[in-house]
Amino acid sequence: MRLQAGCTLTFEAQAPTPLVLMLRPRSGTGQWMEREEYISKPNIPATEYTDSYGNLCQRLVVPTGHFEIRTEVIADTTDTSDVDEMAQYVPVENLPDSVLQFLLPSRYCESDRLGNLALDIVRNTSASGLPRTGYMQAETIRRWIYEKVQYRYNTSDASTSAVTTAEKRVGVCRDFSHLGIALCRSLNIPARMVVGYLYRLDPMDLHAWFEAFVGERWFTFDATQAVPRGNRIAVAYGRDAADVALATQFGPMQLTEMSVWVNEAQEAVVG
Amino acid sequence: MRLQAGCTLTFEAQAPTPLVLMLRPRSGTGQWMEREEYISKPNIPATEYTDSYGNLCQRLVVPTGHFEIRTEVIADTTDTSDVDEMAQYVPVENLPDSVLQFLLPSRYCESDRLGNLALDIVRNTSASGLPRTGYMQAETIRRWIYEKVQYRYNTSDASTSAVTTAEKRVGVCRDFSHLGIALCRSLNIPARMVVGYLYRLDPMDLHAWFEAFVGERWFTFDATQAVPRGNRIAVAYGRDAADVALATQFGPMQLTEMSVWVNEAQEAVVG
Amino acid sequence: MRLQAGCTLTFEAQAPTPLVLMLRPRSGTGQWMEREEYISKPNIPATEYTDSYGNLCQRLVVPTGHFEIRTEVIADTTDTSDVDEMAQYVPVENLPDSVLQFLLPSRYCESDRLGNLALDIVRNTSASGLPRTGYMQAETIRRWIYEKVQYRYNTSDASTSAVTTAEKRVGVCRDFSHLGIALCRSLNIPARMVVGYLYRLDPMDLHAWFEAFVGERWFTFDATQAVPRGNRIAVAYGRDAADVALATQFGPMQLTEMSVWVNEAQEAVVG
Amino acid sequence: MRLQAGCTLTFEAQAPTPLVLMLRPRSGTGQWMEREEYISKPNIPATEYTDSYGNLCQRLVVPTGHFEIRTEVIADTTDTSDVDEMAQYVPVENLPDSVLQFLLPSRYCESDRLGNLALDIVRNTSASGLPRTGYMQAETIRRWIYEKVQYRYNTSDASTSAVTTAEKRVGVCRDFSHLGIALCRSLNIPARMVVGYLYRLDPMDLHAWFEAFVGERWFTFDATQAVPRGNRIAVAYGRDAADVALATQFGPMQLTEMSVWVNEAQEAVVG
Repeated sequence: MRLQAGCTLTFEAQAPTPLVLMLRPRSGTGQWMEREEYISKPNIPATEYTDSYGNLCQRLVVPTGHFEIRTEVIADTTDTSDVDEMAQYVPVENLPDSVLQFLLPSRYCESDRLGNLALDIVRNTSASGLPRTGYMQAETIRRWIYEKVQYRYNTSDASTSAVTTAEKRVGVCRDFSHLGIALCRSLNIPARMVVGYLYRLDPMDLHAWFEAFVGERWFTFDATQAVPRGNRIAVAYGRDAADVALATQFGPMQLTEMSVWVNEAQEAVVG
Repeated sequence: MRLQAGCTLTFEAQAPTPLVLMLRPRSGTGQWMEREEYISKPNIPATEYTDSYGNLCQRLVVPTGHFEIRTEVIADTTDTSDVDEMAQYVPVENLPDSVLQFLLPSRYCESDRLGNLALDIVRNTSASGLPRTGYMQAETIRRWIYEKVQYRYNTSDASTSAVTTAEKRVGVCRDFSHLGIALCRSLNIPARMVVGYLYRLDPMDLHAWFEAFVGERWFTFDATQAVPRGNRIAVAYGRDAADVALATQFGPMQLTEMSVWVNEAQEAVVG
Repeated sequence: MRLQAGCTLTFEAQAPTPLVLMLRPRSGTGQWMEREEYISKPNIPATEYTDSYGNLCQRLVVPTGHFEIRTEVIADTTDTSDVDEMAQYVPVENLPDSVLQFLLPSRYCESDRLGNLALDIVRNTSASGLPRTGYMQAETIRRWIYEKVQYRYNTSDASTSAVTTAEKRVGVCRDFSHLGIALCRSLNIPARMVVGYLYRLDPMDLHAWFEAFVGERWFTFDATQAVPRGNRIAVAYGRDAADVALATQFGPMQLTEMSVWVNEAQEAVVG
Repeated sequence: MRLQAGCTLTFEAQAPTPLVLMLRPRSGTGQWMEREEYISKPNIPATEYTDSYGNLCQRLVVPTGHFEIRTEVIADTTDTSDVDEMAQYVPVENLPDSVLQFLLPSRYCESDRLGNLALDIVRNTSASGLPRTGYMQAETIRRWIYEKVQYRYNTSDASTSAVTTAEKRVGVCRDFSHLGIALCRSLNIPARMVVGYLYRLDPMDLHAWFEAFVGERWFTFDATQAVPRGNRIAVAYGRDAADVALATQFGPMQLTEMSVWVNEAQEAVVG
């Protein structure tokens, strides 16, 4: 589906405040950027760099006062996320070099402390005698989170990590993702965080999900949804939320307003 | 100035033909991408990667028949290219690691064979007793090319390199750039190729120029112009044209039509 | 001083176990590798890659049974670590792109939770009216840790992070480093973890310290020492211990023995 | 075979001369560095970086006068280079992103001008009716060079490129490699230059050969040898000799002496 997706962020800065934005999705598997807009008011100079995960990052210094950034993309996305129940676990020795880092614990995904829980989850569900592929392990984890963890706002904050979510069993999409990532990694399945847009998310907001590397590629998993859904636009990838904050500020500034939209694009942009 | 710049490339393919495009400018010094469009007909899947120079490259396979790609950006650009006549030559031992590669000879810039010419050019012009900075050396080379090499279409082809241009003293923007790069490198001044858009280029086309690293940064030099001009949008960087071909095809396909436009953008894109 | 430094790691594996080693120091500021040895018994094939921090990593699969890896370097090191009390704090907007990642919280360095402590430490010591440079802030943090945190073995484990160390005020070199890093980052001073060799460390072991980016470069800080000391060989860099584990295993294997030595090299290696 | 390989380079510098060395082989497929030495006289500070091909490069400034650099490795190498006559040509659209650059023309490999010759070579040999895999195309090219180009010293220089070698049919290992690379690329087979050590090369010297990407990996081809031989230590990779000069100097300095040795290592280095 051709999606028209975007967001507006409004800030109030008490002093000039450095800001790093990660709001530029790139074309990739399942998503092709047809058009992109990126407007700031006031219009201030910015530079762009690529971080070690390949995300395009914009650096700017927000002046004191009111600041607004608006970005919108029109993207061609696949209507379904790929599913491959037969995708095998990849032994660590066969993983690509660049994927190894997604096996390690990270700020919000303490995989070194969740091994027993992960084993419990996977074991309990393998009584069925079904083939236990890497994909199905990740899916079992995803489903377990979907069923056992309650989705509720204002139950977690920017410091909440997977261990806490595993205990309290409540959180939002970010927490669901962290837990899924940590559990996968504890089984030596590489997992990474994705933030982006999801069509028909309700209520509409920026979203977070995770990917697991099985078979020979990354697959999408979203523990906040009953069934896999497509029409996603990945905006940024990283080990966890510490890497993929869409806006990282270094100073006294409030995000006073934020709106997000993801609609079906109505017509071709150019003649 | 806010520029609206773009191009349409039309191809006829006799068979499915892999194509690598390098048509996505990135925000950087002196250019901020406000809006970008990228439409192909027929609409075919593509993937994107970043090459070792930081250029965004799109890979696709053009199907047999007619194929059209249209891209347009709205970019905020500076009205003048920076000039700093006092920017010093940087001794090789002080150059950043990543800049060293732009001292080496490359496919179209045989700097290993143009040292004497470069010395002649710089020596002849230093009689004035002016301080001979790195910037002024590059500028002297640029001016020499502007004055001594004739700009004429259909005098060079895709195999023409700097040595040939130095001999024949005729060529187009690509040849002018290669010669400027090769001459700078032969004096141990790092130089690289840029392709992109230039406002009020006449006749309008995609353009090529070069940059030299003096002082602590890259400066713009354009040997096809009498005086430095701004309002440029750099689309791709590389050692020479072999690195920055905007479209590299691997099969039997003709570029049947190409149009390029660079206009002042009329109004803000979004409300 | 020319140092001869090395270690032997002995493992017992219950099953073939993938292992990633990070034991190859590279030449860099203040350390020049003259000679390097790297022997495994049994001798098994390995491949090498560079991670996103520039560390050389070796991948191998340890066979079931006894496995030993021995590495030794002869390196020219500086006798003192650079100190520059006047090195200024670098405003975030002026940091190199590649340094920005070292401002973010990471697995063991929850800088997002230690801002108040960091401010307290720095404020309390600024009564002196001395210029408060970035270097001196990092040094004040280092000194505070040295004075307030007790160095004691077996008080922390592989899951201990900076917040815990800040509370319990006890730990080993790894914990001291994590705390120093987290406190620096909470003041927007980039900080990273280093593991390596230190001459005359007592008892001898592999060591960990941290670096802070002030002025225009990284400086060495070691909260386990009363005063700055040189003759260090940095082996690996990263955001915290999760990135720079010298040996990361993915399976059932015990490190049964480990010995480390750092001596003055006796004579030139080659005639 | 365990090889002990090294070289000594002696320079006379008329003035302080920046030098970039590329003399540190890395462990990789078919070669494992057990021990490495790297001594300069006088002993001068150097820094190290990784270029865009992954080569370890050392930067230093040679002082006026006599300078000597000696390096030696002990490496475990495979006795044969892998051969796989069935390794298929990889369609351009399926090549890894990082391999694409090795399809482009480069300074010494004008693949854009050698397409007809390459087709002739491959066509003439396919009369046999044998399956024409990518591997066999590269091997046919290699064999053609071995048979048709004469190996003779002092027939080429640092400016000689593949087109000239194709015409004159004489050269040394560097020229043979350039021609092989250019011919492969003109058939859309990625090819790259390798410099390194070869056991029992006669007369002993640093050597150059090339690799072609077929099947799913790089394979070794050496047009100076009758049959494929192993016991090689690749020291540096690049598009052609412009990228992999083992010593690149930027000033008035002579290489006055050079010796190279590659012997079977006698015994284990450490107890």
